[in-house]
Amino acid sequence: MRAVCLLSGGLDSATTLALAREQGYECYALSFDYGQRHKIELEKAKAIADALGAIHVVTRIDLRQIGHSALTADIQVPKAATEGIPITYVPARNTIFLSFALACAEVLEASDIFIGVNALDYSGYPDCRPEYIAAFEKMANLATKAGVEGKTRIRIRTPLIELSKARIIKLAQDLGLDFSMTHSCYDPAPDGTPCGQCDSCRLRRKGFQEAGIEDR
Amino acid sequence: MRAVCLLSGGLDSATTLALAREQGYECYALSFDYGQRHKIELEKAKAIADALGAIHVVTRIDLRQIGHSALTADIQVPKAATEGIPITYVPARNTIFLSFALACAEVLEASDIFIGVNALDYSGYPDCRPEYIAAFEKMANLATKAGVEGKTRIRIRTPLIELSKARIIKLAQDLGLDFSMTHSCYDPAPDGTPCGQCDSCRLRRKGFQEAGIEDR
Repeated sequence: MRAVCLLSGGLDSATTLALAREQGYECYALSFDYGQRHKIELEKAKAIADALGAIHVVTRIDLRQIGHSALTADIQVPKAATEGIPITYVPARNTIFLSFALACAEVLEASDIFIGVNALDYSGYPDCRPEYIAAFEKMANLATKAGVEGKTRIRIRTPLIELSKARIIKLAQDLGLDFSMTHSCYDPAPDGTPCGQCDSCRLRRKGFQEAGIEDR
Repeated sequence: MRAVCLLSGGLDSATTLALAREQGYECYALSFDYGQRHKIELEKAKAIADALGAIHVVTRIDLRQIGHSALTADIQVPKAATEGIPITYVPARNTIFLSFALACAEVLEASDIFIGVNALDYSGYPDCRPEYIAAFEKMANLATKAGVEGKTRIRIRTPLIELSKARIIKLAQDLGLDFSMTHSCYDPAPDGTPCGQCDSCRLRRKGFQEAGIEDR
């Protein structure tokens, strides 16, 4: 029983991978080198994959040519809460990531693709919503050999989609995840220290407070 | 009126781009450097984009890590007709290509994505079928900012999908396309000379014969 798990190195994707492992999947953890500001993400992802007994795969893609996001272009990451779709939104990012995961799943004959999207805390991102995920799954099953031959049905698994950050943190603790391995900040210092002020840092802090758990 | 047009440098994608230009679109022709065997594809694509007055964009992605196709891996390209899904099928390729096109379309605020897929001659490829394209379009409109804000609806345009190769060649001639700029072979010699024996060469030859047009 094989799964492809998208792994950014953040808390959500690490928790998702831990859950897939608990469910008994042989996991291929897929990370992207997509010209993101902070390469530390990839180092964290590798360490997490190793710790959880997953095979780590890094694929290089160039999203900088597409640009238009504070995460890949030279735009300042906002340090206060914003409304609507955040400037950190990368166009079609989850669609691109899931498409590569689909290609891997087809080659590996994996039945499941795990992605740690969340529709509550990240409601500003269109490609984190359940209706988007359902549409991707339908398309994926028409796109592939397996779909045509009616063999394996690919499932897009989003175990965190309806959970609050506090619930995700409690789940991660239950799964024995080492929080210190995960990384959330959009705009860390060169040594990897989180800024403490971006959307992602604030959500993480609030989540740990609500969960009553200490973030090491 | 802007469109993103997937351009491989082959006859079908060149005809599709010429059609989009005739329909008055400002076109961004998107090609991929995906570790394909023959880089000549990219040179042809650039020349075609220039000749048709489109802006050429090349994105580098690494499909070799995913492998499993005679077009990217070290597998021999078959020189005779095959049944079922051909070995030249690259897993989830059109899904990956369309995902990048979607990201570009979002950044450029383009309303249309043109792709030269064909369901008749390439019936072996699952991701060339109309039901796949319809599912991708639905997903795309849920994936993007424009979809959420209800602004631009993205359309996936497949003008060649129901045409025979002979019909495509007649259409290309009507549009004034210079056939000598296009390239079809899956396994050309280092100088670009087509092998004349692969599926793609055979389809092209048969198409020109049926159309009663000379392939220069």
